[in-house]
Amino acid sequence: MYNHEPPGYSCPFCTLLAGGETPANSQRDIVLRTELATALISPRWWPRNLGHVLVIPNAHYENLYDLPREYGHAIHDTVREIALALRAAYRCAGISTRQHNEPVGNQDAWHHHVHVFPRYRDDNLYESQPLPGFASGEERWAYADMLRLQIN
Amino acid sequence: MYNHEPPGYSCPFCTLLAGGETPANSQRDIVLRTELATALISPRWWPRNLGHVLVIPNAHYENLYDLPREYGHAIHDTVREIALALRAAYRCAGISTRQHNEPVGNQDAWHHHVHVFPRYRDDNLYESQPLPGFASGEERWAYADMLRLQIN
Repeated sequence: MYNHEPPGYSCPFCTLLAGGETPANSQRDIVLRTELATALISPRWWPRNLGHVLVIPNAHYENLYDLPREYGHAIHDTVREIALALRAAYRCAGISTRQHNEPVGNQDAWHHHVHVFPRYRDDNLYESQPLPGFASGEERWAYADMLRLQIN
Repeated sequence: MYNHEPPGYSCPFCTLLAGGETPANSQRDIVLRTELATALISPRWWPRNLGHVLVIPNAHYENLYDLPREYGHAIHDTVREIALALRAAYRCAGISTRQHNEPVGNQDAWHHHVHVFPRYRDDNLYESQPLPGFASGEERWAYADMLRLQIN
């Protein structure tokens, strides 16, 4: 409903879920996978909230409107688990989540995803723009490895 | 876990859930109530996203860390229903959600809540600050009444 995915869209998240690699992410970015949801290090970083996490459904749904409730529940459970793991692994002082639907709502990848941000004093998350380009594998995996240690 | 609620905190959301009024909200702000979650018009408004909605658990939990999963699932279901209702009622062009934990994560009310924002072209939601003070009852109820028409 209210869909904006272009015809022939090659979904980077579906490629990753199927075991593949993309210019932005690889299998080593995946920190948690359950039956219905997966958590990975975001390739796009905010300047003072490095290594934040995306939680996605394991099947292709464009947005919150389309998402079946069992996937929504699994995403909630995974977001909560990631919030606790980030809090411990990164020694941050808070957690914020956000989720975007439609281009006017800031959505720019056509597979539903929830951002889970580590928060730090004076990080200016809301006033800052993401860094240009993607974080490198080495940068992302350092955070993925830290986070994995906190996930059972 | 990681709690910041001050001793003796008088929770405005619990007052509302018990049928009372607060300086910020009244019963007419409630647009949807299910067994475990409630949706109400936020008293704090962003300049170009008027009448956004808060979704809260019907029992007092400070944050995402503390929230039992059945409440998290009910909140997800209510957020989705509100997203669809906002999209239809306000004729907005997108929906964004956010949720904050701990003061450093921008939390400022000690009862878990998810913000559900109507989005409009060039609304600059991320760059803008909320308006000072609270929206009046007349302002809030105009949006509550519009929204109720779209909720079954």
